[in-house]
Amino acid sequence: MTKQYCGKFYIDKISSECNARLGCLHTSRGILKTPVFMPVGTYGTIKGIPQCWLRKAKVQIMLSNSYYLYLNPGTEIIKKAGGIQNFNSWKKPMLTDSGGFQIFSLKKLKKVYDNGVEFKSPINGTKHFFSPEKSIIIQKDIGADIIMCLDECSMYPLDYTLAKHSMELSLRWAKRCKIEFNNKNNSTLQALFGIIQGSIYKDLRKQSAYAMLDIDFDGYAIGGLSVGEPRCHMYSAINAVVPILPNNKARYLMGIGTPEDIWNCVELGIDMFDCVLPTRNGRNGQVLTSLGKFNIKHSKFKNDYSKLDPNCNCLTCMEYSKAYLNYLVKVHESLYRSLLSLHNIYFMMNLMTTIRNSLQNNTFLQAKKKFFRYYYALGE
Amino acid sequence: MTKQYCGKFYIDKISSECNARLGCLHTSRGILKTPVFMPVGTYGTIKGIPQCWLRKAKVQIMLSNSYYLYLNPGTEIIKKAGGIQNFNSWKKPMLTDSGGFQIFSLKKLKKVYDNGVEFKSPINGTKHFFSPEKSIIIQKDIGADIIMCLDECSMYPLDYTLAKHSMELSLRWAKRCKIEFNNKNNSTLQALFGIIQGSIYKDLRKQSAYAMLDIDFDGYAIGGLSVGEPRCHMYSAINAVVPILPNNKARYLMGIGTPEDIWNCVELGIDMFDCVLPTRNGRNGQVLTSLGKFNIKHSKFKNDYSKLDPNCNCLTCMEYSKAYLNYLVKVHESLYRSLLSLHNIYFMMNLMTTIRNSLQNNTFLQAKKKFFRYYYALGE
Repeated sequence: MTKQYCGKFYIDKISSECNARLGCLHTSRGILKTPVFMPVGTYGTIKGIPQCWLRKAKVQIMLSNSYYLYLNPGTEIIKKAGGIQNFNSWKKPMLTDSGGFQIFSLKKLKKVYDNGVEFKSPINGTKHFFSPEKSIIIQKDIGADIIMCLDECSMYPLDYTLAKHSMELSLRWAKRCKIEFNNKNNSTLQALFGIIQGSIYKDLRKQSAYAMLDIDFDGYAIGGLSVGEPRCHMYSAINAVVPILPNNKARYLMGIGTPEDIWNCVELGIDMFDCVLPTRNGRNGQVLTSLGKFNIKHSKFKNDYSKLDPNCNCLTCMEYSKAYLNYLVKVHESLYRSLLSLHNIYFMMNLMTTIRNSLQNNTFLQAKKKFFRYYYALGE
Repeated sequence: MTKQYCGKFYIDKISSECNARLGCLHTSRGILKTPVFMPVGTYGTIKGIPQCWLRKAKVQIMLSNSYYLYLNPGTEIIKKAGGIQNFNSWKKPMLTDSGGFQIFSLKKLKKVYDNGVEFKSPINGTKHFFSPEKSIIIQKDIGADIIMCLDECSMYPLDYTLAKHSMELSLRWAKRCKIEFNNKNNSTLQALFGIIQGSIYKDLRKQSAYAMLDIDFDGYAIGGLSVGEPRCHMYSAINAVVPILPNNKARYLMGIGTPEDIWNCVELGIDMFDCVLPTRNGRNGQVLTSLGKFNIKHSKFKNDYSKLDPNCNCLTCMEYSKAYLNYLVKVHESLYRSLLSLHNIYFMMNLMTTIRNSLQNNTFLQAKKKFFRYYYALGE
């Protein structure tokens, strides 16, 4: 398998109704059908869910975080295991985020230099320095199929001048990431994605996109969105960037999202998504279903013996009733966290299948309408 | 299926070497092969483990606790679901303990009368009263296959006079339990076991056993052991009782045990066991293997890429390495609790299969020796 092959993106169909694309993204561990949703396993594992459940749920790719994996267990242990997919036994495609978002969330524990970012481990206070080069070396060592450039994830709100400086810093780092990525010939099984920044400013987003194209990445991510800005700003930033991006490269919208955002952003031309929503919500009792979302903790479920979602065939729905899950929450039996997270992951996988099928059948907008007619039926 | 059938015990083989018996215990939901180990799902669920995993592990019967189920979700919700096996979707045989042990552990929150025991809910402080009759009605409502008499579980140490009074109280309660159990004809699918008490005093144990036989139960449990007394007292109490018990009734040693206790007590003629050990230890990182036990938290496992037990084919062993499980503990990823509990349950199921096979082949003592030769190999 050659470098050219890994990260290569092919379009099967472009919607006649909108910018949505049906495609496939090649990795060294399999071909992803896009649009694709990536569940988040920050520590190389999706909280409470064994890998065999994910495979059964037809999860195509897991997102993990090189920053966390670097701190613990460290790259040496992962390398010795034969890479992250052997270490965590996932075996299927993985994408690692550079940790930019996590480091920049540290606030007082970090210092940003042109050369990289210095930060203190939130675990034990030890000092670390991530240069763009180091971030790439770590991700190469971890062995993810798709690796991300180190970027400065801009927070919201951010004034224009700061947003411009930050975007330009991410750009300089992206160039250095690309050089390091091409350095030595052990990167033939990995793809490198650039991350477009620029906060809510359309001209900065465009500048970032053009410059990233010049560097030439295997795919392009849009970062720094869904960080608190109004939805209209998010969509306009995406709309500013998408027309610039080439058809033959995958487009990844980072950290998103809700069923609403996914339908809308697929419509705008996005191929890849990740979000903690299905698992974090699951751990809090929030359930996503084809008939809308609800919280299983509500006392009205204590003698509701129906399954969570009549249209779901996950282990949770096949085996347990709402009444029993409500009871598990009440007695603090942690199993409910796994069961609800798993159900929500199935929901997301079913959602993406519905989207892909609708693109295949040229019925995207109709399918979107139908989805929300049922999804809003409960009115919660 | 008639009352006579449920709870009926048949011996396939008695060891020529010792008192060990190979048998089967009939319940309305299937036949248990004995000697059998019952994992404990206090709340009707084994902590962190979905029922489908238990079925795959070939768990024959789950133990649950009527006291906890009565407090939450309450018998009405369980009855409406069609009994505990529908409510928790286990579907297979269940035994409910009366809650005697749990209530008597409450110390200051309880008052014992000849008529029953008054206690305050440790959850919300509400007052409750369990008479022997009420305990049986609750267990009938829950719908377990095997239900237990309400007894006073004697603690250790307990002086002779108190132990005698306590044993006699349990006896009076046992008679009332039997009458209530036979009352109304809805008990045809359930079996009732009496519980022999008498602390460490052999004459009291014998008195209790003879009196229980007079009442005539479907099976006989030995309670109030493994509560802190030296092992020799436990074995001598069992030895005092076993010769009195009829061959055609199952014998259940409550709250036990370790692999050592199980081999030893099967040898003395016990058929049924329950213990929180495999799951509680699992949650604490303790792993039971055919080569001995160890704690996965130990740093020496951080780059040990072998599986927990070379002789185990549980999901955990099939999928994960010691290094990865050690890492999950380190990053507080709760999945390790489920994975280690599951592994320990497989260990117990494999142990019981080894024991049953050895009885079938008349090689019990040889198999016991072989088991411990490997089990003590690690020297931990």
